[in-house]
Amino acid sequence: MRKLFGAIEAGGTKFNCMVATDPNHITEEIRISTTNPTETIEKSVAFFRPYLAKNELAAVGIASFGPIDLNISSPTYGYITTTPKPGWRMADIYGQVQQALGIPVAFDTDVNAAAFGEYSWVEANHQLDPFVYITVGTGIGVGVLINGSLLHGLLHGEAGHLRIPHDLSQDPFKGMCPFHNDCLEGLASGPAMQKRWGTPAETLPDDHPAWQLEAEYLAYCIANLICTLSPRRIVLGGGVMHQAGLLQKVQQQVLHILNGYIHVPELLEQMDNYIVSPSLGNRSGMLGAIALAKQLME
Amino acid sequence: MRKLFGAIEAGGTKFNCMVATDPNHITEEIRISTTNPTETIEKSVAFFRPYLAKNELAAVGIASFGPIDLNISSPTYGYITTTPKPGWRMADIYGQVQQALGIPVAFDTDVNAAAFGEYSWVEANHQLDPFVYITVGTGIGVGVLINGSLLHGLLHGEAGHLRIPHDLSQDPFKGMCPFHNDCLEGLASGPAMQKRWGTPAETLPDDHPAWQLEAEYLAYCIANLICTLSPRRIVLGGGVMHQAGLLQKVQQQVLHILNGYIHVPELLEQMDNYIVSPSLGNRSGMLGAIALAKQLME
Repeated sequence: MRKLFGAIEAGGTKFNCMVATDPNHITEEIRISTTNPTETIEKSVAFFRPYLAKNELAAVGIASFGPIDLNISSPTYGYITTTPKPGWRMADIYGQVQQALGIPVAFDTDVNAAAFGEYSWVEANHQLDPFVYITVGTGIGVGVLINGSLLHGLLHGEAGHLRIPHDLSQDPFKGMCPFHNDCLEGLASGPAMQKRWGTPAETLPDDHPAWQLEAEYLAYCIANLICTLSPRRIVLGGGVMHQAGLLQKVQQQVLHILNGYIHVPELLEQMDNYIVSPSLGNRSGMLGAIALAKQLME
Repeated sequence: MRKLFGAIEAGGTKFNCMVATDPNHITEEIRISTTNPTETIEKSVAFFRPYLAKNELAAVGIASFGPIDLNISSPTYGYITTTPKPGWRMADIYGQVQQALGIPVAFDTDVNAAAFGEYSWVEANHQLDPFVYITVGTGIGVGVLINGSLLHGLLHGEAGHLRIPHDLSQDPFKGMCPFHNDCLEGLASGPAMQKRWGTPAETLPDDHPAWQLEAEYLAYCIANLICTLSPRRIVLGGGVMHQAGLLQKVQQQVLHILNGYIHVPELLEQMDNYIVSPSLGNRSGMLGAIALAKQLME
């Protein structure tokens, strides 16, 4: 009776693992510290072994930090590739999990999985396509669904690294992306806020100018995504978005930047229902991995 | 024997009309000056009437300037909507053509049609998906194919209006987009070049710094499209791209901006084959409209 699905949300600081059938039927969850690949993946696999022994686990979904190789015909399919994280460069996460468990394994980026989770488990999101999920935390990531499928191409999306206007006279912080300095992630991730203001983002008071600046950068990203993808729903999650009032500041700033050019009521009249918080809270990625595993068996 | 297809490329200064079966079998072409909607559309329709009378015309494709309404369930489907062009606001181009001819009519943006033309008529482009077509001329437009379908969403793409870095100390020109000032189109369209340098772009010498600046702005746009869409092929056309050496400058600048982050051989080793000129020259849009008409009958 293989009715359960497994999820591994593979992050740079922790691996979250889950066994569930859907968001309302979560059997078990654990959190594992990210050390080296062999140890971390073996601990994740060990979490699933009892379910495997009882013949309950149908498939596992992995939602991984990146960049990852999603090209099925590539010899390094399922690897984490050029990450700067020590020890994880060219780690074969898919292969190790698949070989250890011997059941089907789905594999995608953490943000693509989160997009898929919000899209497929949340009734109101069905058919809101193109569908965009953005996470703003340690990094900034963007997952995209078009015609019901996650967007893959030459690689996967990397829209956290969009280049946006940066007025040095207003914000002299040079950015901290090791590749691009002042790309979106270099200007607006949690660590970028901490480095610019000299204190963790969550300690900045609600009326600190940091939040208006943060809203502007995120709004530039979102305005660019709207012009490029014309999404019908944008979900904006991640740790930084827990700040009270930030979502509303972003919504206002997106309208300000677009300045009426995209003349549709969804934007002009229903912004509260257009850029929204995740319905699944901080479990979008894990429940997305469950949905990916489920899809694999359908 | 309805074997022929019609195309209308509806532009702000001229309407190009064509009857053809494919790029190698073009029966007839005409160019009509864009005046008011009734007159211009009636002249276009008159061009097709002889073929209709002989029962030769199966369908017509329209590649239109925008913004246009592509929502089939909308009462204004097939209209040009919020254009600033005098007399054309809320012009029912699809409806007038369809009612006058009484045969199936396909309808999309000029750049989406051009993307579809380059994708479907050029053998080497098949399966190069996601596929992006960019035109740089009077305006800047971007057409996108994903999984073989043109990207539509809330509206159509408007990536000519991407917000990109603009260093006022290097380029004090404030931009000329009536909605966004220094968005991509406001900085890098043909008219923007003319306004910045005080002379039409095509009169600027090959070694003028205008071309390096133009390459930088286009490269910011392309780098953002790569991060967002992860395309397998980018076609870069339009009048401004006729400038000798500009394509190569853009290719170099894209690599400079991405700085090795998107680590795939298609970008790092095969750039000459990744960002390319249109195979169909200045007929991408018209032949795309022919392809859209053909698709309608399949």
